[in-house]
Parts: sequence; structure tokens; C-alpha cells
Amino acid sequence: MKGDSIEDGEVSKDAFPRKGVARGLSIMDFILRIIAAAATLGSALAMGTTNETLPFATQFVQFRAQFDDLPSLVFFVMGNAVVCGYLVLSLVISVFHIIRSKAVKSRILLVALDTIMLGLLTASASAATAIVYIAHNGNAGANWFAICQQYNSFCERISGSLIGSFVAVAMFIILIILSVVAISRN
Amino acid sequence: MKGDSIEDGEVSKDAFPRKGVARGLSIMDFILRIIAAAATLGSALAMGTTNETLPFATQFVQFRAQFDDLPSLVFFVMGNAVVCGYLVLSLVISVFHIIRSKAVKSRILLVALDTIMLGLLTASASAATAIVYIAHNGNAGANWFAICQQYNSFCERISGSLIGSFVAVAMFIILIILSVVAISRN
Repeated sequence: MKGDSIEDGEVSKDAFPRKGVARGLSIMDFILRIIAAAATLGSALAMGTTNETLPFATQFVQFRAQFDDLPSLVFFVMGNAVVCGYLVLSLVISVFHIIRSKAVKSRILLVALDTIMLGLLTASASAATAIVYIAHNGNAGANWFAICQQYNSFCERISGSLIGSFVAVAMFIILIILSVVAISRN
Repeated sequence: MKGDSIEDGEVSKDAFPRKGVARGLSIMDFILRIIAAAATLGSALAMGTTNETLPFATQFVQFRAQFDDLPSLVFFVMGNAVVCGYLVLSLVISVFHIIRSKAVKSRILLVALDTIMLGLLTASASAATAIVYIAHNGNAGANWFAICQQYNSFCERISGSLIGSFVAVAMFIILIILSVVAISRN
């Protein structure tokens, strides 16, 4: 694009909305990242602080459920924590894109990292969901018992903490599509 | 870019490698899609045909394990089948990109669909992995029994069928990055 925009009416008509759209996309990118970071942080904290001790005990055993009894739930907390950390760091690049809306290489880098983080977050959310499903419903074929029949509040808490993670997955899909649109316009 | 490339040596030097790279990216896209389709098809078939009947029985029960005893494994087969179908259909657009390497809008559409399919495939692979892990190791806290101690060949088969799915996940991540690079060059 040439610099003679004062004389040439066509350039000014075309260039400013284009730059405005690119900046708008970058601002939306920034907001979505904050929402996704909050959602993953909430999920990690909600899951990571879950435990329940039943109000009765035998002579030898006290019945107690904690999230780290189940490896998939530990993976869930770690996955959400890593993605949350990444999202906070990526805010720096997102701000850079608001200021310099023509940057392309840093956007490509961000799409690549976002895609990998989408994979990690989906994997951790989905593995935890599979285990929460078994905890609720059990499995007759494998003779796995539905532990939610005893640990009610534990199960409610681990089910609820999945929501934030799936919200963040949806945000990531939107983020990737927004970035690709922004790259195609430069 | 102007059409006077016969006279202007600089245009012909620059334009042809650029077009060559775009076509190269499109051909690589096509090959990766075929590999990913084969991997997901293999995973779906391997998981979907798994069952094992133990060589002993009581008067009332015959011990038999089948993949559809576990809902996560059913989700795995369905997820892989859907993604495989999508990949085969997407080959048409991929061929179109080899012929017309300057197309941008169809590439954006393909990235958006690829991202959603990446989410679906990762979710199904990861949910199945969480269940296969429990089948192998059981869980002392929840009193879930490691069914693999009885159903050996069943467990080997369901573990093996996960591999294709994870290979396809890696292919999808590369596909998305390749598409973004191709879009940025047009």
C-alpha cells in the first residue's frame, strides 16, 4: 500500500476500515483470552481443592475421596494450569497485535501454539469427563461401582469443574478462526 | 501483481517459487489427509471389532468383554468414524487447492472445520485412553478392578487401537499450521 493516502480517495476508503477490522479482531482476541484464562483457572482451582470425608468410619478405614485418587483428574488440574499460564503469557503478544495490527509472523506462531494448547486442554477435559461419567454411572460389564452414590458433594464438585474447561475449549476454537481471518486480511 | 512478466525479470523470479511453495504445501496437505484418514479408519475398525470370550463359564454367566460395554469406547469408534468421513470429503477441497493454489476463503473454511474435528478426535481418543488406563491399572481408591488381568487380548487390542487416533491428532495439528502458512503467503 502506498503512502499517498491524502490525494488518493480510494486508498483512504479502503485502508482505514481494513485496519479497523484488524484491530477489532485483535481486541476480541485479547478479551477471549482473558475469558479462557479465567475459565481454566476456575476449573483447575475447583478440581484441585475437591475432597470429601464421609461422616462415618470403621475401626481401620476412614472413607475419604480426594481428586488425586484418580490420575485423570490430576491430569485435568495440570492441563488446565498449564493452559491458563500459557494464556496469561500470550496476552503480551495479543496486546502487541492490537498495537501493530499488520504483524503476520507472530500471529502464525500464536495459531500454532493455540492449536497445541487446544489439543492439551481438550485431552485433559475429556479424560476427566470419561472418569466422572464412570463415577456417576459405574459400569456393570467391568464391575466398576458408581462411587457417586456415596460421595455426593465430591461428585457434584468434579462435574461442575469440567464446565470451565469446555468453555475454554470453545474459546480456543474461536481464537484460532479469528487469527486465521486476521492473517488472511494482511 | 502485474501481467507483464515476460519483460520484467524480477516478477518471474519472485512469482514462480511463491506459487511453487503454495502448491507444495497443498500437495503435502493432501498426503497428510490421506494418512490421517487411514489412521482413524484403522483405529475405528480395530476398536469396533474387539471382543473376547473367556474360555470358562459358570452355569449362569459366560464371561465376555466387548468394546460397547464401555460408553467411552463407543464414543471413540464414533468419533474416529466421523473424522475419517470428514477427511475423505475434505480431499475434494484439498485437490481444488492443488489446482488453484491462490484460493483463500476455502482454506479458511477448511482450517475452521479442521480445528473442530481436531477437538472431536482429541476428545474421543483421550476419553478412551482414560478408560483403558483404568482397565489396565484399576483404581484402589474407588475400588475399581483392573479388568485387564482377565481380558488380556481384549486389553491389548483396545490399547493398540488408540495409536492411530493419536497419529491423526498430530496430523491435524500439522495440517492446521500448514494451512495458516499457505493463507499467509497469498
